[in-house]
Amino acid sequence: MLVSALLTSVGINSGLCVVFFTLYSILRKQPSYYELYIPRLLAEGISKRRSRFNLERLIPSPGWLKRAWQMSEEDLLSISGLDAVVFMRIITFSLKVFLFAGVIGIFVLLPVNCTGDQLKDIDFEDLSNNSLDVFTISNLKSGSLRLWAHFSAVYLVTAFVCYLLFYEYKYISAKRIAYLYSSKPQPHQFTILVHSIPVSAGSSVSETVERFFLEYHPSTYLSHMVVHRTSKLQYLIKDAKMLYKRLTHLQSDPNQKYKHVGLFGHKVDLVDHYGKKLENVEENLRLERLEVSLAAEEVRAAFVSFKSRYGAAVAFHMQQSTNPTQWITEQAPEPSDVYWPFFSSSFMKRWLSKIVVIVACILLTILFLIPVLIVQGLTNLNQLEIWLPFLKSILTISFFTQVITGYLPNLILQLSLKIVPPIMQFLSSIQGYICHSDIQKSASNKVLWFTIWNVFFASVFSGSVLYKISIVLDPKNIPARLAVAVPAQASFFIAYVVTTGWTSVSSELFRIFPLFCYLLKRPFSCCSNDEFEVPALRYHRDIPRILFCGLLGITYFFLAPLILPFLLVYFCLAYIIYRNQFIHVYEPKYETAGKFWPIVHNSMIFSLLLMQAIAVGLFTLKKLSMASTLIFPLAVFTLLFNEYCRKRFLPNFIAYPAEVLIKRDREDRSDPTMAEFYDQLVTAYEDPAMLPIHFSQNADSLNQPLISDAAVRR
Amino acid sequence: MLVSALLTSVGINSGLCVVFFTLYSILRKQPSYYELYIPRLLAEGISKRRSRFNLERLIPSPGWLKRAWQMSEEDLLSISGLDAVVFMRIITFSLKVFLFAGVIGIFVLLPVNCTGDQLKDIDFEDLSNNSLDVFTISNLKSGSLRLWAHFSAVYLVTAFVCYLLFYEYKYISAKRIAYLYSSKPQPHQFTILVHSIPVSAGSSVSETVERFFLEYHPSTYLSHMVVHRTSKLQYLIKDAKMLYKRLTHLQSDPNQKYKHVGLFGHKVDLVDHYGKKLENVEENLRLERLEVSLAAEEVRAAFVSFKSRYGAAVAFHMQQSTNPTQWITEQAPEPSDVYWPFFSSSFMKRWLSKIVVIVACILLTILFLIPVLIVQGLTNLNQLEIWLPFLKSILTISFFTQVITGYLPNLILQLSLKIVPPIMQFLSSIQGYICHSDIQKSASNKVLWFTIWNVFFASVFSGSVLYKISIVLDPKNIPARLAVAVPAQASFFIAYVVTTGWTSVSSELFRIFPLFCYLLKRPFSCCSNDEFEVPALRYHRDIPRILFCGLLGITYFFLAPLILPFLLVYFCLAYIIYRNQFIHVYEPKYETAGKFWPIVHNSMIFSLLLMQAIAVGLFTLKKLSMASTLIFPLAVFTLLFNEYCRKRFLPNFIAYPAEVLIKRDREDRSDPTMAEFYDQLVTAYEDPAMLPIHFSQNADSLNQPLISDAAVRR
Repeated sequence: MLVSALLTSVGINSGLCVVFFTLYSILRKQPSYYELYIPRLLAEGISKRRSRFNLERLIPSPGWLKRAWQMSEEDLLSISGLDAVVFMRIITFSLKVFLFAGVIGIFVLLPVNCTGDQLKDIDFEDLSNNSLDVFTISNLKSGSLRLWAHFSAVYLVTAFVCYLLFYEYKYISAKRIAYLYSSKPQPHQFTILVHSIPVSAGSSVSETVERFFLEYHPSTYLSHMVVHRTSKLQYLIKDAKMLYKRLTHLQSDPNQKYKHVGLFGHKVDLVDHYGKKLENVEENLRLERLEVSLAAEEVRAAFVSFKSRYGAAVAFHMQQSTNPTQWITEQAPEPSDVYWPFFSSSFMKRWLSKIVVIVACILLTILFLIPVLIVQGLTNLNQLEIWLPFLKSILTISFFTQVITGYLPNLILQLSLKIVPPIMQFLSSIQGYICHSDIQKSASNKVLWFTIWNVFFASVFSGSVLYKISIVLDPKNIPARLAVAVPAQASFFIAYVVTTGWTSVSSELFRIFPLFCYLLKRPFSCCSNDEFEVPALRYHRDIPRILFCGLLGITYFFLAPLILPFLLVYFCLAYIIYRNQFIHVYEPKYETAGKFWPIVHNSMIFSLLLMQAIAVGLFTLKKLSMASTLIFPLAVFTLLFNEYCRKRFLPNFIAYPAEVLIKRDREDRSDPTMAEFYDQLVTAYEDPAMLPIHFSQNADSLNQPLISDAAVRR
Repeated sequence: MLVSALLTSVGINSGLCVVFFTLYSILRKQPSYYELYIPRLLAEGISKRRSRFNLERLIPSPGWLKRAWQMSEEDLLSISGLDAVVFMRIITFSLKVFLFAGVIGIFVLLPVNCTGDQLKDIDFEDLSNNSLDVFTISNLKSGSLRLWAHFSAVYLVTAFVCYLLFYEYKYISAKRIAYLYSSKPQPHQFTILVHSIPVSAGSSVSETVERFFLEYHPSTYLSHMVVHRTSKLQYLIKDAKMLYKRLTHLQSDPNQKYKHVGLFGHKVDLVDHYGKKLENVEENLRLERLEVSLAAEEVRAAFVSFKSRYGAAVAFHMQQSTNPTQWITEQAPEPSDVYWPFFSSSFMKRWLSKIVVIVACILLTILFLIPVLIVQGLTNLNQLEIWLPFLKSILTISFFTQVITGYLPNLILQLSLKIVPPIMQFLSSIQGYICHSDIQKSASNKVLWFTIWNVFFASVFSGSVLYKISIVLDPKNIPARLAVAVPAQASFFIAYVVTTGWTSVSSELFRIFPLFCYLLKRPFSCCSNDEFEVPALRYHRDIPRILFCGLLGITYFFLAPLILPFLLVYFCLAYIIYRNQFIHVYEPKYETAGKFWPIVHNSMIFSLLLMQAIAVGLFTLKKLSMASTLIFPLAVFTLLFNEYCRKRFLPNFIAYPAEVLIKRDREDRSDPTMAEFYDQLVTAYEDPAMLPIHFSQNADSLNQPLISDAAVRR
């Protein structure tokens, strides 16, 4: 790739970013787009839809930039929770790393590379006509002593990243503890989920749970709530909601109140018609709910609440039963975070579904390459003409040829990568996780490894799937192969950061896909006051994206330091845009209190190790075997550092220590509102499908709360 | 190897076994050998040293065989504890497996192999002149459909072994729980060891521990005992003991009471002399003990006792401190099992020493090959003559040549393997384990992997160390290489079972090495009534030996079924001999309640996987690719089975579940002896070096128990 090509790409994408920013600055001020760009403020009632027109609305203003810039971490914590803070810290962490690496890369490595003389000399007259390779390590001769500069850079950056990783882990760990101390008593702190409950014939799950916990945790047990199979109920509720929506719509619009029905067209009062239908559905709901609350539909799982956080923690940490595959305990999620649809209760089912999902993920990750390769085959036009002969006439037109070969493959690849996060989320959801946060956490991991495999390795090692697998199965030669293949792709990944990176983050600001959906939907939408949902940030989509850019930066900083300025721009954009989105768009749906951080830590450690493996291979290739030997202690140090961090910090991200829980419990003892809290706790984990709903006029009978045999208050 | 050679070897070794059995039957009845062959009965006072001579003593009698045969598992449990039962179950487990495999091997696979025609036909006229290879799978042609018999055998035996493994795991797991229910309250059930205690300036470890547990475990905390640095004390005690021994010896033997001392030879009352010396040492001891009990010599670790087993378990399972590298808890061992000499208290020290030991073990295991290879170079006489020219004249004598080439290498190898268990035990002891049982458990694992690497892999893949490592680093080709190398060594391992296996187990009966020491020591020993110690079975020496024979059996049963009868003889011998030793010789020094079983399970699973890898390679080599593909599901099944067992049984081998502990605690509540037990519990974990000793006549001052500031009874 020539410098001019890169500059063109940078120009186009900078232009795109400016356009996005300007359009955003205008559109966000239009009341009809409030739903899209400031749904949070709208939902909180801070912004009202003003229909009054003024000229100011059409002039782009950078006020939002200032607000996003000025927000402090405390503000972010208070409006979006600890998860948002952790998310922003991924970006600031990357910024710090690449500022440090950038200084080394631009001021030391880049001059060293440029003055090498392996390739033809740099042409200072016409800079844009140089190959990008001149700026990479490929420009240094074998055995050149200048490679020691790269060697030192590898050591320095590894040390700096490890230092920062340690510091961040410590900081977020402390934040987690502080979060527990400052938070009000919350149901999930006092509750565990027990599953694989062994039920003897003749007794219900509810009775069994109560008997067990009264016997073994008499002093701390408070209440329990058995989980029911409610898929049928959920279906009925969905029906009722839709009918209700249509009904209210009809009532507000008198024109549509009457309608000709059937061929012979006698007029029917539609309000009456739908009202009756709704009543029917509600009656069904009531009956179904009664049936579900009976023992027959009980799942062998229950939320068990305790009188103290410590009590719940003890029950969680101890193996309860002689058979470790029964009475399995796990921490309860927040009530709103529970993923009700899928509740597999038996140990074997969960275990097997987990294994199946892992296998499915691995297969998907490996085999996804096949369609990608076929799509990339589009660049080979002759092949295409043989497959699809009727295209021959079209392909003679140069424009189509350019589109098909130059743009289509990349577009198809990007679009197909877009569907990966939902697929991974689906796979995680059938893996047996019980809450949305765990599902997203697991999906983040899956998407990350998917991206590393399908973008990094697939681009680096071009060839068949089997060839790629054979590389992984031959661990001894990985560094050597990486050393040959990775530097060759430097210009590709620089372009990747500029195109995919910059575009994805500015389209995040502009919300292109939601905008698209919104514009499509609007003509059919009945009124602008329709209900709308404030979205939540999809961590499993955005975290892997940012981490992958981090991986690119760390692996390429010493090979092609030219990647660093572009990465810095990317992270600066991400910094300001995500802060803005947290203020205006995204609302947290759950709070894991920073449990996403270990994913970031692991990804960074993997990046470091990959970088070191490349360095080993490269120094061997460049006949500087002393340097390649000296990288090994660094890899050992990185592994030991990771192991130490696992021991030092990870436990705090799995569960809170006894010390903290006991202190927090003591604080509560003097709190007069605890009695009320315990009352709420008893019903906190009621399945939403089991709660009464208020739709039809004569639905009073439904408003009586069901006396659930599961909610036993002691 | 020819059949005749094997028969010779079997003959010689059977003869040896008979000689050992006969000699044992005689010697065990000689009073002077009681210490060696029935120390347990002697120590328990069941057998007295009768010096009365009768003829019966010289006639070998098989009474001990009958006793060993008739003993039931309950008897074994009551005299030697659950660990001995588990040890014997390893042998019965192997017997069952190889009986099953033996039936298949001898009646199906052996005839199939013999009637193959790859090698020259079997010579039924002169059976002993056939090569052993005729009986192995090598005798089948490539692509022969008879190989499906071997394929079915692999499936059948895997299924049978897995079934048995499951059954045994379940059985021993249940035994463990039953053991807890039936055992009396024991100090280690109520106690945990806390280390890495953070001590603030100005307060002692003892105060810190008390403050912490009074604050966070006020209802269950009972007392604690801080660990002290006592290496100096232990040295002094050893001195005192030696002096006391000499003194009593002098007092009993009036001839030696006076002795000329010095050049000029004035007579000195030696009793008086040593008495004074002893008093001196004891005075030092008293002073040192006072010093040690001060805070200055406190180690930052303490045994903390609780009022209930459940209380101790809760403190063990919960992470105590916000910093997971402080207040680390582990289960306390039995007081007599504590390994006092090594008490590294800080998290970092322990972690680093663990890493160093693991690295040392791996290096030792890999590099041990080098001396082995040098020794095996002895078979190459020309090489030896070049190295050591002076040997030339000796080597012309045919006898020496035969000894040096035929016997010496094997002897040196066997002797050097003998020193491995103590080395591994030493390495485990500096790894940071706090009790002898953990050290032996860890050493068992190390010795097992050492044996597999240095006997199995070293024999199978002859070549340099680097060549062997390169094989392991190339996982893809392992099955193919195994398939070529393993069957070629069949006759070597059959001979190995007959020579090393049979001899080691019958020398275990005859106790050759202790006998040797005893005979050497006896002339210098002053009196036959000397103190003697009842030995304990060294599990880390004997378990790996048995498991290695199991590995040989499982990997070779379908390659060379001829190995099975010899293995069966080996396990029968082991069965009867170890039962006898448990009755007469070994006394348990600790009780892990079956924690050795997971090692056996893992070893068996590894054997199965190795066998399957060989089968994959072999079927590929024999051009039966269908069969080699169909082995993969079996390997997946084996891995899943192992994973399931880990989840189903392993937790019970790490700690007892809440259910069991609470039930057991409730039983104790009505026990009137508990108050007394709690009194003992407070001082149960006093370092033996800190206990008063009674040697010199005026040592009364020492008999006053030290008021240890550590033992705080609440």
